[in-house]
Amino acid sequence: MSTGFTLSIDAMGGDAAPKMVIAGLNRLRDAFPNVRFLLFGRAKEIEPLLGRYQRLRSSIEIRDTWEVIGSGDKPSQALRTGQNSSMRRAIDAVANGEAAGVISAGNTGALMVMAKFVLKTLPGVDRPAIATLIPTRVGQSVILDLGANVECSCDNLVQFAVMGEVFARKVLRLEKPSVGLLNIGEEDLKGKESIKKAAAILQDSKLAIRFHGFVEGNDIAEGTVDVFVADGFSGNIALKTAEGTARLYSHFLREAFRQSIMARLGGLLAARALKRMRDKVDPRRYDGAMLLGLNGICVKSHGGTDSIGFSNAVRTAIGLISDHVNEGIRNDFICLYADKNGNGKRAAL
Amino acid sequence: MSTGFTLSIDAMGGDAAPKMVIAGLNRLRDAFPNVRFLLFGRAKEIEPLLGRYQRLRSSIEIRDTWEVIGSGDKPSQALRTGQNSSMRRAIDAVANGEAAGVISAGNTGALMVMAKFVLKTLPGVDRPAIATLIPTRVGQSVILDLGANVECSCDNLVQFAVMGEVFARKVLRLEKPSVGLLNIGEEDLKGKESIKKAAAILQDSKLAIRFHGFVEGNDIAEGTVDVFVADGFSGNIALKTAEGTARLYSHFLREAFRQSIMARLGGLLAARALKRMRDKVDPRRYDGAMLLGLNGICVKSHGGTDSIGFSNAVRTAIGLISDHVNEGIRNDFICLYADKNGNGKRAAL
Repeated sequence: MSTGFTLSIDAMGGDAAPKMVIAGLNRLRDAFPNVRFLLFGRAKEIEPLLGRYQRLRSSIEIRDTWEVIGSGDKPSQALRTGQNSSMRRAIDAVANGEAAGVISAGNTGALMVMAKFVLKTLPGVDRPAIATLIPTRVGQSVILDLGANVECSCDNLVQFAVMGEVFARKVLRLEKPSVGLLNIGEEDLKGKESIKKAAAILQDSKLAIRFHGFVEGNDIAEGTVDVFVADGFSGNIALKTAEGTARLYSHFLREAFRQSIMARLGGLLAARALKRMRDKVDPRRYDGAMLLGLNGICVKSHGGTDSIGFSNAVRTAIGLISDHVNEGIRNDFICLYADKNGNGKRAAL
Repeated sequence: MSTGFTLSIDAMGGDAAPKMVIAGLNRLRDAFPNVRFLLFGRAKEIEPLLGRYQRLRSSIEIRDTWEVIGSGDKPSQALRTGQNSSMRRAIDAVANGEAAGVISAGNTGALMVMAKFVLKTLPGVDRPAIATLIPTRVGQSVILDLGANVECSCDNLVQFAVMGEVFARKVLRLEKPSVGLLNIGEEDLKGKESIKKAAAILQDSKLAIRFHGFVEGNDIAEGTVDVFVADGFSGNIALKTAEGTARLYSHFLREAFRQSIMARLGGLLAARALKRMRDKVDPRRYDGAMLLGLNGICVKSHGGTDSIGFSNAVRTAIGLISDHVNEGIRNDFICLYADKNGNGKRAAL
């Protein structure tokens, strides 16, 4: 049984909110009886939905919040004018100690900007990064950054590597996860200056990160390393390309099984095995991207998610809290920035 | 029947060369009886292989070349010291008019650097780009750049858009292909300055390109646009991630059909339909990346390709020559760089 704590929930974020939020939380009620939920959103819309989930009701407290950040709103504007939005108030609840973490399926940019403003970054972290798990041939890997930082310095990349390594160690329960820097193949063209410099730093890091070196796009699906580190631009493109390709393949597969009576029959016979395969790559299973490097647990669920995906995002937050991921990052950054004499000064990267 | 011309072939490029090269050319003998092949490579290794393909022999001329550029060689070094390599001499054959185009499955970076040095770029093209076709939900699209240029200015991106549009028009036989700039999703973070500027230029381009705007990684598999324009870094990562994901999915599928006797039987019944699907996404079908913007046709085949892939790369080159792709690019660049009065001066981009 998990230790009891409270999670704050942006009940209005996501295309199918607040309905999928409530249904998603209900999925977790039995598995996490000690976790309480602080819901921020329109009580008038949330209350009627709870009628179906009487037992969930006792784990929930609603904070009536009328304002909602739209998916098309500019993050900078959300920060300026969204102080009373469900998203902002859900984040505030972490900052003021009411909740151990926050989950939202709303506007990613707004969540990022507001969470950074309210929660601040952990000591030593210049920029937070968005991280998630992805399915690979050999299991799962961590990939970051997925879009929080368009341009990244070598220091940013090194910090992402440190944070991603802690994430993999804690969440994937790996003793010594391997870390790779996403790059392109051609030797002479091999990457941007920032990536080459980051590689040099990681190679002789005092943190003893198991640095594998450069990896390429095709290594992601292979699971060549446990942690894929990229700038937010190429990381975002890699993740979305992988998701799109998986969907395309599923589409072609469905089409193939419709081509003839024989194929239909074949599909029926193999239905169970195919379902197991689909489950393995189901994006809902990997819902829950962590805003890593913030002074508080903040998890983003897919905007288009359903109750299954949202419940997994909440599960991700519960895992991050129970596994003390932020404490791990804090410790590793103290090591990274302390010089050899351990006097706590920031060492030159 | 195609008009007769000669192609120069780097017979030593690629992991399985020269064997797969010869077998690949043999696949094209009947379809293109008027195309002749000028082979650069080790005659001692090539001659014995031709024994099996007597009829191909008459379409081939071998230029004995001992030196070979290795897949790990630095492009800059290849350029300095590889004047007598099979790759370099195959490129030279295009420059001196002996051949209408060159195909190599060797070191991409070396091919790029040597081809640019020998063939030069087309008027108005600052930097060549690597382009290829990829399978999508609705057919095929063009994607470029795939790694020739790690960092790209907005001018580079605009030029890639122009070249990619011509490529799609000619090779995919589209009257008015749509063009998109690969970017990431979040509004406020929306992309790098260079991409935003390129979008602004393409929006009011005098070329009347059908500019769709920004696209994301998942749009590639969807085929949202006919031409995906990216800097070489993210384009390379997108293509390799897509290829890796497709391979992973195939692997999971094979695994699924091995899970039980029922699944095995299902797989057998659906075998024909599944094969058709596999063929549709078979990377060998899309072998042949064009080095676009050079003053000569230069096609790169996958380093790890087999005879089927290599024959498709040669087929790509034949298509590019027959479809006058370079003449199209030349014309469009004259339009792009001529000012309103048509006096041929380069207009400010």
